[in-house]
Amino acid sequence: MPGSPEGAGARMLGFPPGMGGGAGVGTAGLLRTVSGRRVLCVRLPGFPPGTWGKVWVYARLYRSVPRFRRPELLEAARAGGEFLLRCARPDPRVPKAAFALLRDGRAAKVQRSVFSECFCALALDELGRATGNACYEAAAREGLEAAERWAREEPNGPGRPPLLRLHLQRGRTAVLEHVSQDGLELPGSLGRLQNPGHAIEAGWMLLLHARARGDMAAADEAIDGFMLGPLDAGWDSPHGGLLAFHDADGLCPTQLEWAMKLWWPHAEALVALLAAFAHRRDPALLRRFEQVAEFTFQRFPDPEHGEWFGYLNRDSSLALSIKGGPFKGCFHVPRALYMCEELLNEILAGP
Amino acid sequence: MPGSPEGAGARMLGFPPGMGGGAGVGTAGLLRTVSGRRVLCVRLPGFPPGTWGKVWVYARLYRSVPRFRRPELLEAARAGGEFLLRCARPDPRVPKAAFALLRDGRAAKVQRSVFSECFCALALDELGRATGNACYEAAAREGLEAAERWAREEPNGPGRPPLLRLHLQRGRTAVLEHVSQDGLELPGSLGRLQNPGHAIEAGWMLLLHARARGDMAAADEAIDGFMLGPLDAGWDSPHGGLLAFHDADGLCPTQLEWAMKLWWPHAEALVALLAAFAHRRDPALLRRFEQVAEFTFQRFPDPEHGEWFGYLNRDSSLALSIKGGPFKGCFHVPRALYMCEELLNEILAGP
Repeated sequence: MPGSPEGAGARMLGFPPGMGGGAGVGTAGLLRTVSGRRVLCVRLPGFPPGTWGKVWVYARLYRSVPRFRRPELLEAARAGGEFLLRCARPDPRVPKAAFALLRDGRAAKVQRSVFSECFCALALDELGRATGNACYEAAAREGLEAAERWAREEPNGPGRPPLLRLHLQRGRTAVLEHVSQDGLELPGSLGRLQNPGHAIEAGWMLLLHARARGDMAAADEAIDGFMLGPLDAGWDSPHGGLLAFHDADGLCPTQLEWAMKLWWPHAEALVALLAAFAHRRDPALLRRFEQVAEFTFQRFPDPEHGEWFGYLNRDSSLALSIKGGPFKGCFHVPRALYMCEELLNEILAGP
Repeated sequence: MPGSPEGAGARMLGFPPGMGGGAGVGTAGLLRTVSGRRVLCVRLPGFPPGTWGKVWVYARLYRSVPRFRRPELLEAARAGGEFLLRCARPDPRVPKAAFALLRDGRAAKVQRSVFSECFCALALDELGRATGNACYEAAAREGLEAAERWAREEPNGPGRPPLLRLHLQRGRTAVLEHVSQDGLELPGSLGRLQNPGHAIEAGWMLLLHARARGDMAAADEAIDGFMLGPLDAGWDSPHGGLLAFHDADGLCPTQLEWAMKLWWPHAEALVALLAAFAHRRDPALLRRFEQVAEFTFQRFPDPEHGEWFGYLNRDSSLALSIKGGPFKGCFHVPRALYMCEELLNEILAGP
């Protein structure tokens, strides 16, 4: 298992041994950590999830799940949060966060997008809630406000985030990965590209947002447009599983990995379908959840050593034996398992 | 066949219909063009090969291969060269070339590396030789001199090119894709990464350079270190073909496409092994050439419509049906076929 983010990040951040890796489904409970491995770790606060992902996961589990209310989890989250406060901004006077840091905390890469600021804010906000320490919340608020300002007010600022609903195209039947700023389909294979995992992940975020606002039309759009449409179009019928990419006209994408099955779209689909069922209580949604869950839990977890594998070939054979790497950290799996447990509790508690 | 660079570039540059695409082995001769297709074309002068690749291929074939001494080929190359002269530099006063241009010639991307300048210089130099027009050679020289200056003199300039021989590591038994600036192996999976195609391509370039200088030790290093070692280590014994990536310790790489078979490493290996045989006249080298050629010509060319496919799965089944795309243009295939023909002529002419 080369290239695991386990170890370096954990040790650097003072995480207890065995607490730096991802999560797996195991007999020990929802979250089972894996033991330390060889190290590849230069990407920390940005996406793919590094430090910020662990901080969010550890703090949220500590705060929300009684069996994870363990002091070492909170201390690990706090050590990560302190690292973010100390090092995430290459220039402490400017709230721009780095995308990737070196081991010693120096910035390795700064991006124009606002993702790093948002992820840092997410982690620090959750750490503030878990610790009750207002300084984390204040730092989160400052970062998020800067990101919002850049996104809304400065056309030449660090990049405007895409407006999710513009991506629902072709008479609301297809979520396209790239659209023009005016919300029109782009020409060529770039415009036709579909990423079922991104669409479905956006779907549950839109659904939670719509439910919080009581906007039932938006909730329906999230379920039908962003979840069920992409799930139907992106499900690889003969072999099962969600394609990494596909083309809205059925042509061949240019992405080399288009026909692979990646762990994270399946994790997102589990969350999305339970959230949809919790909202609509339509048994068809539960059957779709069971279909995705059966594929996911049969194929991705390593029955021998725990933790999920990340990358399968089209026929579901294992393509990469790594369990952590540049794009797979301690985030999608534990977040999905945690959210599924919360949603199942909500569902069992009744409407 | 979505995403083909054929068409847009060809039409924009005034290339005759059907002359914009890649090359295939066919009954019509060494180079057989494919008919126009749908269009994806924003990447022009940089790498992956766009305009500069076509200019180089067309001009070189016109100049060097009697059966390609066709006026429409030279005119197409000239139209491409004029486009490069007019548009490759976002600021005409500075010899920095763009990595990618939009259809209308505006710069879409400028990189810090010096690759774009080198590729432009390569194309314009060849066009100067083919046309006898000194202005192309002057532009090529100016671009190349700027690139050399940046690379040699300015540590903060547009990036120092890597020194190829530093990549021969582990007692000269392994070519590593990434090394430190001091020529030491880097820790982790990044440091262990091997890319057989890059190593072998570098091998024939080093060999031609060594032969031109009469440096026999360097020629041996090119053959043994950069060709035969990577060919042995990167050949996928059960299935045949060169892996896209592998790990020097035999661990799993983090690149999703690591076990795929890509067209260009095979094209490079054909050139490399013939160049090595032309130099050393060791029949073992010819047998390796035949092994690579058998795999390559059985798997990559499309027997029905001509042109090579670009991407196979590990078991050699077709992974992507595209014949052109962001990384496959009119360059590696025609260059390899042309160079193999030249080398075979040299070999047949005797030592």
